[in-house]
Amino acid sequence: MNKLIWILFLISTSIFSQKTDEAQLRAIYDAALTQGKAHDWLSHLSNQIGGRLSGSVQAQQAVDYTKKQLEELGLDKVWLQPVMVPKWTRGLPEFAYLETSPGVTINMPITALGGSVSTPFRGIKANIVEVKGIDELAILGKQRLEGKIVFFNRPMDATKISTFDGYSGCVDQRYSGAAEAAQYGAIGVIVRSLSLRIDDLPHTGAMSYGDIAVENRIPAAALSTRASDLLSASISLNPDVNFYFKQNCQQLEDVPSFNVIGEIKGSTYPDEIIVVGGHLDSWDLGDGSHDDGAGCVQSMEVLHILKKIGYKPKRTLRVVLFMNEENGLRGGNKYAEVAKSKNENHVFALESDAGGFTPRGFTFDCSDANFDQIQSWKPLFEPYLIHMFVKGGSGADIGPLKNDKIVMAGLRPDSQRYFDHHHAANDTFEHVNKRELELGAATMTSLIYLMDTYGSVKEN
Amino acid sequence: MNKLIWILFLISTSIFSQKTDEAQLRAIYDAALTQGKAHDWLSHLSNQIGGRLSGSVQAQQAVDYTKKQLEELGLDKVWLQPVMVPKWTRGLPEFAYLETSPGVTINMPITALGGSVSTPFRGIKANIVEVKGIDELAILGKQRLEGKIVFFNRPMDATKISTFDGYSGCVDQRYSGAAEAAQYGAIGVIVRSLSLRIDDLPHTGAMSYGDIAVENRIPAAALSTRASDLLSASISLNPDVNFYFKQNCQQLEDVPSFNVIGEIKGSTYPDEIIVVGGHLDSWDLGDGSHDDGAGCVQSMEVLHILKKIGYKPKRTLRVVLFMNEENGLRGGNKYAEVAKSKNENHVFALESDAGGFTPRGFTFDCSDANFDQIQSWKPLFEPYLIHMFVKGGSGADIGPLKNDKIVMAGLRPDSQRYFDHHHAANDTFEHVNKRELELGAATMTSLIYLMDTYGSVKEN
Repeated sequence: MNKLIWILFLISTSIFSQKTDEAQLRAIYDAALTQGKAHDWLSHLSNQIGGRLSGSVQAQQAVDYTKKQLEELGLDKVWLQPVMVPKWTRGLPEFAYLETSPGVTINMPITALGGSVSTPFRGIKANIVEVKGIDELAILGKQRLEGKIVFFNRPMDATKISTFDGYSGCVDQRYSGAAEAAQYGAIGVIVRSLSLRIDDLPHTGAMSYGDIAVENRIPAAALSTRASDLLSASISLNPDVNFYFKQNCQQLEDVPSFNVIGEIKGSTYPDEIIVVGGHLDSWDLGDGSHDDGAGCVQSMEVLHILKKIGYKPKRTLRVVLFMNEENGLRGGNKYAEVAKSKNENHVFALESDAGGFTPRGFTFDCSDANFDQIQSWKPLFEPYLIHMFVKGGSGADIGPLKNDKIVMAGLRPDSQRYFDHHHAANDTFEHVNKRELELGAATMTSLIYLMDTYGSVKEN
Repeated sequence: MNKLIWILFLISTSIFSQKTDEAQLRAIYDAALTQGKAHDWLSHLSNQIGGRLSGSVQAQQAVDYTKKQLEELGLDKVWLQPVMVPKWTRGLPEFAYLETSPGVTINMPITALGGSVSTPFRGIKANIVEVKGIDELAILGKQRLEGKIVFFNRPMDATKISTFDGYSGCVDQRYSGAAEAAQYGAIGVIVRSLSLRIDDLPHTGAMSYGDIAVENRIPAAALSTRASDLLSASISLNPDVNFYFKQNCQQLEDVPSFNVIGEIKGSTYPDEIIVVGGHLDSWDLGDGSHDDGAGCVQSMEVLHILKKIGYKPKRTLRVVLFMNEENGLRGGNKYAEVAKSKNENHVFALESDAGGFTPRGFTFDCSDANFDQIQSWKPLFEPYLIHMFVKGGSGADIGPLKNDKIVMAGLRPDSQRYFDHHHAANDTFEHVNKRELELGAATMTSLIYLMDTYGSVKEN
């Protein structure tokens, strides 16, 4: 072939692939919006099973259900990967009140933080001290905190456009507040719920005591945003107010559970593995529809859509439904551990764990060369209003797979409503819009299709 | 000044304005997200007043309330612009059933279309014939349609990424279905609700009889999507099924009403007028929160935010809350008529009438030179995830202002959920997210700020 013909060949190939890619993405979106199963799957997970706390009966039901659904897709292989998970139980409903003066009380909606110890059986009542952050504890010191309940009340910053930025600016209070306050002799911790919405729903979430001895651990609970505002106003009127709360959660022994895995073997490069996933466990207050039922069914949908449009992946494509993201990350760690022990070559991992809202794009954790290749695909996504291709984190569950070669990505849906529901009793099915969920699945499928077709950029 | 100094001056001025613009947009978004009034205003319009059908008591209450709120903002001038509006009333709740065989009936949720005539007092019952569009009427002909009820059942196309494209592909059935079917002797029309959600809520909306004589007009109602699927399945099992419906809506004489207008006089170019608005009337089934309470309070918020950040517009800035967009457009026509009669120079008009969802950008109806200027502002909007700056329609109410000089724009929020609520009983306050509403207001304010600062591009 002479040079001119070669160039013409390259151009025509490139135009041809671009047209093919355009047509494939159109087929993917069409299939997701008209033949998708994600919404039905989510309805079952949410409405028939419900909240899926690690180690619960519901978590096991979710394992059984999703395994069966993946088997029905006719994948090459579906299996369960055993993993031991922590088992924390909430016990009886929590109860709390503010005592503004002796005998005058206002009930307040709280929820125990995941991992917290119980209060004594009769609950605890003490003067409550408001702080806006962990830093203030050292200023107040043992003298002002000993025997008190500490109230962490720094709200999320509403001016952050991504609500995740507001969340990450506050989550230290929930995660480490009790461990820090215990060091100053506090006997309990109440944390403002991590939500920008002013309402009556407390939002739970993981906390850690770090290396504090079991006998020194103090109970911690989240308070609704509206009650937090009321409590703060009451304290500023009268710093002597008392707060009472009672919870009887327990940390039990680890129990066996599973990651659920389904696979289509690659036709050309079977040893190059692409993973797409979400986490199957959830908190117990709602039914875990957005966090992360949505991510699970979208990940399952990726394989379903590719089958529907008749696309046969060149690389091995795995959906992984990770167990125990919320309070342990044991599933993510186990998957990476097994992958390493088998010397598996993971080239791309994509997680959806930011809710089933309208997709806006992805964040990527990868080399510049891979990021350049990915950005060259941006125009393909424009008809679907997908516009965010930025560097950033990917997902907690796929995190342990990270090395200097793999491309990692996280789906980024519109974030405005996420923390209205996150870890609260209103993370429920009716708050997931079918089309938004489906568009997310289609967007993930499109990226997987492109990564499978073109592969990651190999560097030295 | 020598050339080099002049160039340096220009560059520094340009960098300075860019920094100023960046800072102003940041101040606008911060104010909207932390000091906004839009959500409280909407709560009043939705929860204290409710649905605001033209000519209703509620529409007048909304006029009074918004006028008072604009007055409290301390604008230079607030006034009511009189306009006569049509008054259509729904009357008693509609009732419908499908009769699968004599005496065996299934009740079906319908709602009269706006502008429809009543059925006879006892309702009408007839064999019902399904069509997928107006075209099919001519094929069936008078022979097959005379004395029948016609059921228009073409669903919105789910593969359209913008749900507005799905809507515009179907709305002819609702708007003209009755006028067309009447010409073939049909005695009533039932239209599938214009929504992609499968549920039990019928969606109303405007229809027209064109020039059909009053005595030949036939009643028309919308049927919920779920009932439409059931009806269609029933007809395909047995084409002889009958349908019954009863409604007693009425078209009354026109009544007086108002556009509500507030103004800040321009400091430098007072004769150049910038308009921002939405429509104050709504349908009667829900409380008109998304359509278009959201657009009204966002438009009011534009002036509120600019006052909050201490920005004094160079051009005259007007908020206009138009009356009667839904069933007449009398407010929009009146505003343009008065503007023309006063020889006013409108340079820019922006409407928000696509729901209070996360803003994605704007569509523009303007000259290429103006579009180029607007596109040069795109980077300023990137931190706020505003990415859509495309040519397209603007808004129904501002439409009559169109000439070859004015720049017209429409806010484009995320469209996925809009038609779940549009014209139905669930267009209610709890379905508007506070932050999404506020981000829309901030995005509108930012564009108004830039148009006011730089002006429109004047061409010959």
